[in-house]
Amino acid sequence: MNPFPNPDMPSQLTKPAEWVMVDWGTSTLRGALLSAQGEVLQERAFAQGILTVPDGGFAAVFAERFGDWMAESHRRCLISGMAGSRQGWQEAPYCLCPAGFAELGRHLLWLEPGRIALVPGLSCMAVDAMKTPDVMRGEEVQIFGALQLAQRDSATLVLPGTHSKWVQVHSGRVTEFKTFMTGEIFALLSQHSILAKTLDLNGALDVATFLQGIEHSQQASSVLHSLFAVRTLGLFERLPAAALPSYLSGLLIGEELRSQAVSTETVPLILIGSDALKLRYTLALQHLNIASQSWGAEATWAGLFALATSGLTFA
Amino acid sequence: MNPFPNPDMPSQLTKPAEWVMVDWGTSTLRGALLSAQGEVLQERAFAQGILTVPDGGFAAVFAERFGDWMAESHRRCLISGMAGSRQGWQEAPYCLCPAGFAELGRHLLWLEPGRIALVPGLSCMAVDAMKTPDVMRGEEVQIFGALQLAQRDSATLVLPGTHSKWVQVHSGRVTEFKTFMTGEIFALLSQHSILAKTLDLNGALDVATFLQGIEHSQQASSVLHSLFAVRTLGLFERLPAAALPSYLSGLLIGEELRSQAVSTETVPLILIGSDALKLRYTLALQHLNIASQSWGAEATWAGLFALATSGLTFA
Repeated sequence: MNPFPNPDMPSQLTKPAEWVMVDWGTSTLRGALLSAQGEVLQERAFAQGILTVPDGGFAAVFAERFGDWMAESHRRCLISGMAGSRQGWQEAPYCLCPAGFAELGRHLLWLEPGRIALVPGLSCMAVDAMKTPDVMRGEEVQIFGALQLAQRDSATLVLPGTHSKWVQVHSGRVTEFKTFMTGEIFALLSQHSILAKTLDLNGALDVATFLQGIEHSQQASSVLHSLFAVRTLGLFERLPAAALPSYLSGLLIGEELRSQAVSTETVPLILIGSDALKLRYTLALQHLNIASQSWGAEATWAGLFALATSGLTFA
Repeated sequence: MNPFPNPDMPSQLTKPAEWVMVDWGTSTLRGALLSAQGEVLQERAFAQGILTVPDGGFAAVFAERFGDWMAESHRRCLISGMAGSRQGWQEAPYCLCPAGFAELGRHLLWLEPGRIALVPGLSCMAVDAMKTPDVMRGEEVQIFGALQLAQRDSATLVLPGTHSKWVQVHSGRVTEFKTFMTGEIFALLSQHSILAKTLDLNGALDVATFLQGIEHSQQASSVLHSLFAVRTLGLFERLPAAALPSYLSGLLIGEELRSQAVSTETVPLILIGSDALKLRYTLALQHLNIASQSWGAEATWAGLFALATSGLTFA
């Protein structure tokens, strides 16, 4: 049964479709060539996020980077991430939560009908007085990919990064999510603030100091105050300069975790991110006795493959 | 009775001392000439904070800016602020809380004995697991000045700014205080973050939007999350670009206020700051039903005058 019938576009393929999957974010362009069975055959990554692409230049960059993969007639393409934003290739309007695979599939924006499509992001409205909106682009395919890999249809997920996402999924649909500016504030403070003067950013993660920051943040009255400890603990030589970034990271990640009531029904938490961030969040979650399982880039390709093979009408 | 006797330095003045009071901060150098009775005769301000002064150049800048005032033999000088820090003229070690006028006076650092002295800052140790230190330089004289002007010896005070201070004073002594990086985080977010792209910083304060931010922050699970509303409320055109800085300001000042348990014993709160910040904090405090009274630059001169005339041994 095909939930997305398109009577104008009958299937024309003589051999099973292979897939060019693209995750085009703010700062990075990544792609994978997948077999008809979803196996990753090749991967590519470029520092060509959407911010580096001039207006009207998206098709050219896409052709330059993935034209060889797309040259074969049985290849089809899905693109997720900021390429579907107002600043991207074309705007694929947000799909309002609660939303699952079916909603995402119905809201694809076809760049070449039946051949290349942009995956929309998700939006949700908080139940606060302002009905504050929240948005994501790119994380939605990682979420559905990780759920497939974990064989779960309900979970709390965290996707740490510049703008961390905390996501609730029930019965295969994203019901709500929240964005935290954790990574961006870490970058601002460590590069541009008064704290930057005393931080030595070249050191490796100091696990004990990181966990002291996690612990401090659980008891802090406000992160606006606890952050100042990074300055004074350095000033009073209570922490060496090389350990201060680990403390700052612990304070910020700890603040993010403090504000979450992780229900025992939804553990283990699903964690999706880079190796460096998975390590920090796993350490922090262990310290707070919250079980987690984690996934990396494979979640993106699994999510895009699951979406592509969920009944979309490709030519 | 003189609590600071100095037998080696008998009084030499034939007419009552007049006072050159200097507040030398990170970004600004301000001075006032005070009569023997504490009346402000003249004021000067220069964009010559300590960060602009080369190593070993403090005496020359001081002479250039205040040499004419100091040329008369009955003029004496106290200097407060970051000039007494490790990056300043000379380091005047912090005076540990609880501390009042007597402790400050005993810890002056004399640049010219009996004639020119640096006022030390205050430090305190939090009662948390890390015994996190906190520090101030310059605010201590404003605190004692405002208490004099308000004729109070116990109060909760707030000194908003790049690094806002919340201060508890009992029986004339600062017992504890906390620094909040509110102003610095506002500057970082409005200048360097993703939010900067959509903020129009040229608008005037939008009071209704500012108070919406104050209100939102009282219910927010974490400021790391609520800050993202500045982006999405702009993206969804729920707030105009010119109103977004007011919303951001409300979220941050509101987070600072949320974390404070203002005791009914210590109201009205004493607020010390620039006119622009006094307005914002007064509006926010009124919105939260907390009474306050406010003071400006006069608190600095009153504090330095009270310290100078509290029994210090000037030549």
